[in-house]
Amino acid sequence: MHSQLSARLFAEFLGTFVLVFGGCGSAIFAAQVLTDDKAVNMGIGFVGVSLAFGLTVLTMAYAVGHISGGHFNPAVTLGAFLAGRIDAKNVLPYWVTQLVAGAVAGGVLYVIASGKEGFNAVESGFATNGYGDLSPNGYSLMAVLIAEIVLTAIFLFVILGSTDKRAPQGFAPIAIGLALTLIHLISIPISNTSVNPARSLGVALYAGSEPLAQVWAFFVAPLIGAAIAGVAYKFVFPDETDVLLER
Amino acid sequence: MHSQLSARLFAEFLGTFVLVFGGCGSAIFAAQVLTDDKAVNMGIGFVGVSLAFGLTVLTMAYAVGHISGGHFNPAVTLGAFLAGRIDAKNVLPYWVTQLVAGAVAGGVLYVIASGKEGFNAVESGFATNGYGDLSPNGYSLMAVLIAEIVLTAIFLFVILGSTDKRAPQGFAPIAIGLALTLIHLISIPISNTSVNPARSLGVALYAGSEPLAQVWAFFVAPLIGAAIAGVAYKFVFPDETDVLLER
Amino acid sequence: MHSQLSARLFAEFLGTFVLVFGGCGSAIFAAQVLTDDKAVNMGIGFVGVSLAFGLTVLTMAYAVGHISGGHFNPAVTLGAFLAGRIDAKNVLPYWVTQLVAGAVAGGVLYVIASGKEGFNAVESGFATNGYGDLSPNGYSLMAVLIAEIVLTAIFLFVILGSTDKRAPQGFAPIAIGLALTLIHLISIPISNTSVNPARSLGVALYAGSEPLAQVWAFFVAPLIGAAIAGVAYKFVFPDETDVLLER
Amino acid sequence: MHSQLSARLFAEFLGTFVLVFGGCGSAIFAAQVLTDDKAVNMGIGFVGVSLAFGLTVLTMAYAVGHISGGHFNPAVTLGAFLAGRIDAKNVLPYWVTQLVAGAVAGGVLYVIASGKEGFNAVESGFATNGYGDLSPNGYSLMAVLIAEIVLTAIFLFVILGSTDKRAPQGFAPIAIGLALTLIHLISIPISNTSVNPARSLGVALYAGSEPLAQVWAFFVAPLIGAAIAGVAYKFVFPDETDVLLER
Repeated sequence: MHSQLSARLFAEFLGTFVLVFGGCGSAIFAAQVLTDDKAVNMGIGFVGVSLAFGLTVLTMAYAVGHISGGHFNPAVTLGAFLAGRIDAKNVLPYWVTQLVAGAVAGGVLYVIASGKEGFNAVESGFATNGYGDLSPNGYSLMAVLIAEIVLTAIFLFVILGSTDKRAPQGFAPIAIGLALTLIHLISIPISNTSVNPARSLGVALYAGSEPLAQVWAFFVAPLIGAAIAGVAYKFVFPDETDVLLER
Repeated sequence: MHSQLSARLFAEFLGTFVLVFGGCGSAIFAAQVLTDDKAVNMGIGFVGVSLAFGLTVLTMAYAVGHISGGHFNPAVTLGAFLAGRIDAKNVLPYWVTQLVAGAVAGGVLYVIASGKEGFNAVESGFATNGYGDLSPNGYSLMAVLIAEIVLTAIFLFVILGSTDKRAPQGFAPIAIGLALTLIHLISIPISNTSVNPARSLGVALYAGSEPLAQVWAFFVAPLIGAAIAGVAYKFVFPDETDVLLER
Repeated sequence: MHSQLSARLFAEFLGTFVLVFGGCGSAIFAAQVLTDDKAVNMGIGFVGVSLAFGLTVLTMAYAVGHISGGHFNPAVTLGAFLAGRIDAKNVLPYWVTQLVAGAVAGGVLYVIASGKEGFNAVESGFATNGYGDLSPNGYSLMAVLIAEIVLTAIFLFVILGSTDKRAPQGFAPIAIGLALTLIHLISIPISNTSVNPARSLGVALYAGSEPLAQVWAFFVAPLIGAAIAGVAYKFVFPDETDVLLER
Repeated sequence: MHSQLSARLFAEFLGTFVLVFGGCGSAIFAAQVLTDDKAVNMGIGFVGVSLAFGLTVLTMAYAVGHISGGHFNPAVTLGAFLAGRIDAKNVLPYWVTQLVAGAVAGGVLYVIASGKEGFNAVESGFATNGYGDLSPNGYSLMAVLIAEIVLTAIFLFVILGSTDKRAPQGFAPIAIGLALTLIHLISIPISNTSVNPARSLGVALYAGSEPLAQVWAFFVAPLIGAAIAGVAYKFVFPDETDVLLER
């Protein structure tokens, strides 16, 4: 089904907005909410943040996936293009829309977060991605790049496989959303988990110069991982190369 | 499928009862259950409460969604009406039923909670929503209003999109229920999460004058958010304006 | 589809075994696994136990639900009978099978648990249900009875509604399993959550005289709750009274 | 649908790689991430690891299950063979592919983990399975063998039942993946949970001689459990003996 480009871009805007607002928002507002004696975290921890990121994609893919394909992520758009699932002419409009939506979501998060006394985006980290000193658990640039490449490739294999016409129909948003949950369960301590340049840029814009200086890594690694999987999928499971993701 | 109004209202009563009893009940009974040395919380925390709220809607939408549409929330009924999914004549009966069901659920929670020595609804907070001093993490009225408006709008986009006839059929309760989980994962620390006037009023009635004095905000913001999404959905994705939600 | 009674009873045995082995086993083995300094619980807490109970039903209902209807619970069998979903002649064989399966599961749990030095079933509680002094958080008998009646009624409404031929087909195990998760998220602190006499008896047999002396409550309350819902469902949503649950 | 053997083996490689990389990776990187005062674990704990293992199978079964049947586990391949779901000639290629994929995943995990200063695979345990002194909570060899046999048998009953042509179509990956989550929720403290020789060997290769010396138990017990279930399923629910798992 081919929807009008304007409706498709609105769908991608909505989905990417929810991904960044919901995923990063859960991390900013709710990951750590300590009791007064600091002994117990009532907040959602990394499990809750992982679940939140996955549910943004699961829910919005059911909401608007039939309109736009439900990418919400420039790396996904690249992989889908290389696997022959979308037309070349859609790639750039999708990318621009996703990056803008991420930035808008980051801005709304900033406004809400500022409603709590003492909030400081730079000090809080603002859910940005990072390596070395900015990695949550101190992982090197090389480890972060490998993890992001491998995890984005896995993400694309799940996306391309579960939307393949040979797979059970209608279940792809569950598989794709929960794949993003899985990816976060593995890698929040490594890189705070990107696999999505729009998510990384969307919050880095508000968190000072240091995270912004590292954001290149979260463009490069996800795009490489997605490209590898997109090409590999088309080569290894060739029957479906002419099926569009949005079908 | 058009069920008799009495069956539909019974379905809305059941669903809203379960939403408030289960969601708020999980918060009241189970969110914090500390070990004797206060060092470890065996309880379900904000992750468990988020999951519980979502599962009330997921399960009851499968149970009775085919009867009533599965709103369980006056804001959802408003958004569904503005998007052209239900008839105007159903709005008021749905609203009254939902508000009554929430109040009944709050009452049953009060009775059970009173079966533990030392229970005091006012001191406990009784899972009420609030801003400023009554916000779990001290967020301002403005931050709470913005969050509730944005999150309710997201909720309605998921509801209207996943029940659209173009979306995969049968999966809407999963998407909608887990959207409510997502919304709670983000915003329990901000407002204790409403997006539903029936949920807010249902417990505020039993928790003293302070939460009740703030309950207006959790009528206004969710209704605004739902109205924005209902109108926007109809405008941006117009093909489906004549499809009823309960189909 | 009518399977042979022997296959149906084997299916009920398997499902009830998994429910008690998995649900109670997760509580016994994994709920609390403290770090050496007792400051952090690596174990699954009440959230994990809630998830485990729900997943036993979700998974086994997909595995053998098409054979036996997937009750795994004498209260469910009663409610299904009163709602006209199963024949009277099946009730007693189902009940006996479920109670035996629960007891066998409790026995296997006992053997495995004894493989850890210092294990004592009586001291550990062995995941038994209770009220008053045996309620995890000290809830009275009256509070426990109300909670168990209300929650079992909710469980039956989800079961009867989601297996109704008017509901989306194939999704019932998800709705039913996650309803059991929801029920545990609310009520583990109240009664350790039963809503299932086979689950209660299955572990009470191995945990000394005190839990066994209270097990009557977890026969009475779930059966009352299920009966209320079974009769109410048939009365309020009458179109489906001739549909068997196992379809 | 019979895909070419090369595509099927690539699918099994991918799925088993993701299972070991994602499941064991979540344990290695994210299970325990303490705050500076060691009082709070922001990491995912045993709940998160359980979820991660299940989601590897849920997501990859939707991605490539229609290609290879989605075993990702030598014990599953044995059980599927004994239940008459796959041809004998596929067993050995599947086994070799799964074991190699597990070992490759373990290697990539090792490389990434080495990107954090002070990492030592032997000291960390590296998510290996074990009994006695190497059991997370000190369970005996006998308890571990019984648990692994029973849990693998349950796993196979879910797999064979949910892929039976009489079960709802398309839902099997949800049931199977969440069954693996359930299994981990029960048994991480007992054996760190295997039910899968490829998962056990994949990390044991990098964790020194002690875990490797115990890895035999995690070949023997899962294969016994799978064999029991495979034979029992075919005997008790005979109508489906000629249906291939990959259908």
